[in-house]
Amino acid sequence: MTLEWKLQQTDGRARAGTLHTAHGTVPTPVFMPVGTAGTVKAMTADAVRSTGARMVLGNTYHLMLRPGAERVARLGGLHRLMDWKGPILTDSGGFQVMSLSGLRKMDEDGVTFQSHVDGSKHRLTPERSVEIQRLLGADVTMCFDECTPFPATHEEAAKSMRLSMRWAARCRTCFEPRDGHGLFGIVQGSTFEDLRAESSAALTGIGFEGYAIGGLAVGEGQEAMFSTLDFTVPMLPASHPRYLMGVGKPSDLLGAVRRGVDMFDCVIPTRSGRMGRAYTARGQINLRNARHAEDDRPLDPDCGCPACRKHSRAYLHHLLKCDEMLGPILLTWHNIQYYQDLMARMRDAILEGRFEAEAALIEAGWAAGDEA
Amino acid sequence: MTLEWKLQQTDGRARAGTLHTAHGTVPTPVFMPVGTAGTVKAMTADAVRSTGARMVLGNTYHLMLRPGAERVARLGGLHRLMDWKGPILTDSGGFQVMSLSGLRKMDEDGVTFQSHVDGSKHRLTPERSVEIQRLLGADVTMCFDECTPFPATHEEAAKSMRLSMRWAARCRTCFEPRDGHGLFGIVQGSTFEDLRAESSAALTGIGFEGYAIGGLAVGEGQEAMFSTLDFTVPMLPASHPRYLMGVGKPSDLLGAVRRGVDMFDCVIPTRSGRMGRAYTARGQINLRNARHAEDDRPLDPDCGCPACRKHSRAYLHHLLKCDEMLGPILLTWHNIQYYQDLMARMRDAILEGRFEAEAALIEAGWAAGDEA
Ligand SMILES: [Zn+2]
Ligand SMILES: [Zn+2]
Repeated sequence: MTLEWKLQQTDGRARAGTLHTAHGTVPTPVFMPVGTAGTVKAMTADAVRSTGARMVLGNTYHLMLRPGAERVARLGGLHRLMDWKGPILTDSGGFQVMSLSGLRKMDEDGVTFQSHVDGSKHRLTPERSVEIQRLLGADVTMCFDECTPFPATHEEAAKSMRLSMRWAARCRTCFEPRDGHGLFGIVQGSTFEDLRAESSAALTGIGFEGYAIGGLAVGEGQEAMFSTLDFTVPMLPASHPRYLMGVGKPSDLLGAVRRGVDMFDCVIPTRSGRMGRAYTARGQINLRNARHAEDDRPLDPDCGCPACRKHSRAYLHHLLKCDEMLGPILLTWHNIQYYQDLMARMRDAILEGRFEAEAALIEAGWAAGDEA
Repeated sequence: MTLEWKLQQTDGRARAGTLHTAHGTVPTPVFMPVGTAGTVKAMTADAVRSTGARMVLGNTYHLMLRPGAERVARLGGLHRLMDWKGPILTDSGGFQVMSLSGLRKMDEDGVTFQSHVDGSKHRLTPERSVEIQRLLGADVTMCFDECTPFPATHEEAAKSMRLSMRWAARCRTCFEPRDGHGLFGIVQGSTFEDLRAESSAALTGIGFEGYAIGGLAVGEGQEAMFSTLDFTVPMLPASHPRYLMGVGKPSDLLGAVRRGVDMFDCVIPTRSGRMGRAYTARGQINLRNARHAEDDRPLDPDCGCPACRKHSRAYLHHLLKCDEMLGPILLTWHNIQYYQDLMARMRDAILEGRFEAEAALIEAGWAAGDEA
């Protein structure tokens, strides 16, 4: 049986469900920490698990360059390599490759590009991307597509989206069905409703195990992102999981769950953590700020992560000022914990039919801020 | 009652004992991981504990600059700050300050120096060093001394050692006795037997809770270090713990335990780990070496650390090649685990009267190497 998502409860447009994969079941809405090169940066796999995270993302682009997809396969796959027993979603490499402006050349068949590591030449096509993701052992394989840059004219967005749709059909053809594994299509079309509709129709016509919304969180701003979700999400089949790629800040997650999105990934919690920025029930806190230097209070008294349970803000501040590796370790840990707690809180509220009330409480906490 | 060490068993000159402190009992011989700035680099306190480490070292020099001794005291002391429940030994700051050539000026009373962080001026005297260590909350306070550079003429070594002895007397005077806390004197005298004898006599005349051997592992080489231990250790009271400062590689530890040393600290396991070098039962292994790129075996099959239990050499190699923080994290973890296991193995052998047989086995493993 293929990868499957089951709806448990709706509350407004928000949905709670379960995603059944070859590596276990994941409650949704779910946030997947990003394990770019086979590691969630600064975290052991045990640490990631301790936050309640059940599913992580791996990057095809990084892993095909180092250590190489065939090598990962010889070493037993990505799960074995990084000691991750839960499901893994891999992206297609498309997004990273398209970002290598100047170093890449696109044609109808695929993209040729130069490695940012050593300048070596590589080629990605829909077929090769799907093959790499199979070699990595992905539970969820993503279609190889072009993430349309923002802003784009209607003509540019249409042309780019239609190429992605032809590639999506090729991905479906070459994807090898395996128990508990699935292929997700990616809706493109920038912020244009007619193009999102055309893309959604094309993908649902082909048929996928899940539908991602691509081409957002690329500079359009939260308002434009939410408007695009407002008209795009209803175009997707209610029976299948919806995944908003590369999103986002906590308020993005809340707004997207409210609009019916089930899955997320983003580097924000890990990247911000390495820079000393924490996400909390009281909004964002920069631990490098001098106001924390003598503060013996925990970063977030309601958080169960080691940074909050065992240490003071003053200690976290000290570690960051001294460039001690434990600073990024603890802040990353906290942020992943906060994201997992936030998703669990939203999911519980959906199951109990009180999503909007809970959302209001969460937003009030952020608005109150930490310095009040 | 003051800090106390109790002899359990001797085997040749090697000794097994227990050190009783305000923060618990530590079996000796003991290796203390170095927590320079209030963190064992790349490790959470839980990770350090998981290796079996029972006691760590903190650096007066680093902590007096950042976050500052008075601030640490206001924040509840170093134990609270770094979440370390076991005993902490702090060095006196002397060694680091003396290394700041050009930035420091020494006189009979103490040393004035410039911070390597921001160039600010600071002064350390025996009295201030002891005060700082009290503010940090050290279980074991070290006397402020001059670590005589190597090589030194007999005259230079004598002059330097005699200053350290005058400072040791001042440290004893100002050290405030507290239950489970103690002050260690430091024998100096370079590699000169008569000076080591004069220094040992001076210190035992004053009386300390433990005796450190300083001025070694500063470039004299293992042979000269062992010769110096051969004549220095017997000069120290059998009833008290002996601490060889800043040592060392696994073979240094084995040779020094064989010669009657009970306590050690060194940055080698942590620093080497960050560079991808592992210490194992088969000697030193550089995980950056290309021979590990496809090696699915564990780094050390007999080791219980997460690097060895959960991952392959190929994964560790990959992390190091990609400069992923998890590489230093896992390698540091392994090295501290190896050091703790090595100390426990030596201790068990001493208790069972088979130290030399065990030492021969350990040395045979190192000599066999990893590539055989
Ligand atoms: Zn936390
Ligand atoms: Zn190990």
